[in-house]
Amino acid sequence: MNDNNLREKRIDGSEVFSGKLLHVFHDRVILPNGHETGRDLIRHVGAVCVVPITDDGNVIMERQYRYPVDEILWEIPAGKLDSKSEDKLEAVKRELREETGFTAREWIDLGFLYPTPAYSDEAIQIYIAKGLEKGEQDLDDDEFINVEQIKFESLIEMVMNGEIADAKTQLALLKAKLYLDKKA
Amino acid sequence: MNDNNLREKRIDGSEVFSGKLLHVFHDRVILPNGHETGRDLIRHVGAVCVVPITDDGNVIMERQYRYPVDEILWEIPAGKLDSKSEDKLEAVKRELREETGFTAREWIDLGFLYPTPAYSDEAIQIYIAKGLEKGEQDLDDDEFINVEQIKFESLIEMVMNGEIADAKTQLALLKAKLYLDKKA
Repeated sequence: MNDNNLREKRIDGSEVFSGKLLHVFHDRVILPNGHETGRDLIRHVGAVCVVPITDDGNVIMERQYRYPVDEILWEIPAGKLDSKSEDKLEAVKRELREETGFTAREWIDLGFLYPTPAYSDEAIQIYIAKGLEKGEQDLDDDEFINVEQIKFESLIEMVMNGEIADAKTQLALLKAKLYLDKKA
Repeated sequence: MNDNNLREKRIDGSEVFSGKLLHVFHDRVILPNGHETGRDLIRHVGAVCVVPITDDGNVIMERQYRYPVDEILWEIPAGKLDSKSEDKLEAVKRELREETGFTAREWIDLGFLYPTPAYSDEAIQIYIAKGLEKGEQDLDDDEFINVEQIKFESLIEMVMNGEIADAKTQLALLKAKLYLDKKA
């Protein structure tokens, strides 16, 4: 494939908004045709998520209120890295334990996703966790998550029916299904 | 399900950054425990994407450079709505025609995804298009997209192998596969 006609080249840039969660930058770039244009983008530390499957075929799911869409969503356990260099497997083990109380004996890496590569560098690594053992949830004071166990096959139907909206959750469940079906 | 313990309540808010593409807001909210906190969030007009499948089982795919991740990615045809109220089916027909030249006789709605509901209200509607007819690509002067036809089954392997990173593209391809397999 010859894709040399597609690349842009950075001239310079600066941070235009620095919030607690979001860091927005504006860069000037040269397009492949030589024109100059601006690019607004978010720099993100990266994240991890996990499909935790019990021995009897349930997934540990979360109900979480998401302010931007003003809805309570079904999501798999997930969280941000503490830093760009944090080990992703350590991070996802921490998030699973803190948000749900569960630890796991077996971890399977299902690759990653860019949720919005047009305007953010966020990457979310996806895992399956098996061999689960229940412990105590350990949420921050200002974190509110309800944990529910749902049959894996019911969740696939919920993805196809539109009952699950979150992108990482939909994709991780379908990838887990194809991966486990192929292995079986 | 009793999820009444999860909701947050808006106090007030303001726009903190207004770019060409990104509009960032900072709101003050009351948490379920009565504490006050801030929420940074992006307001987005919404988007559409499509898995266009030819009669001989190829998908019309795009190669596109994405500046935030500095990579050329595999993506399905997609684009933003012109306004919040634009008809999504009209929008996706326009994007398919402009980006690839193709028009389609049959459109199937596969539901939607929230790419990043923790900090954005963006929703992307997903379609399958069949009965394709080739016409002329009609890109903006400053838009650069290479179009390639790839076997549908090869793309499913590429999703599972990690060769396709974009979230909407991975999810739309797997949803299309499950939908079409079930129908077959």
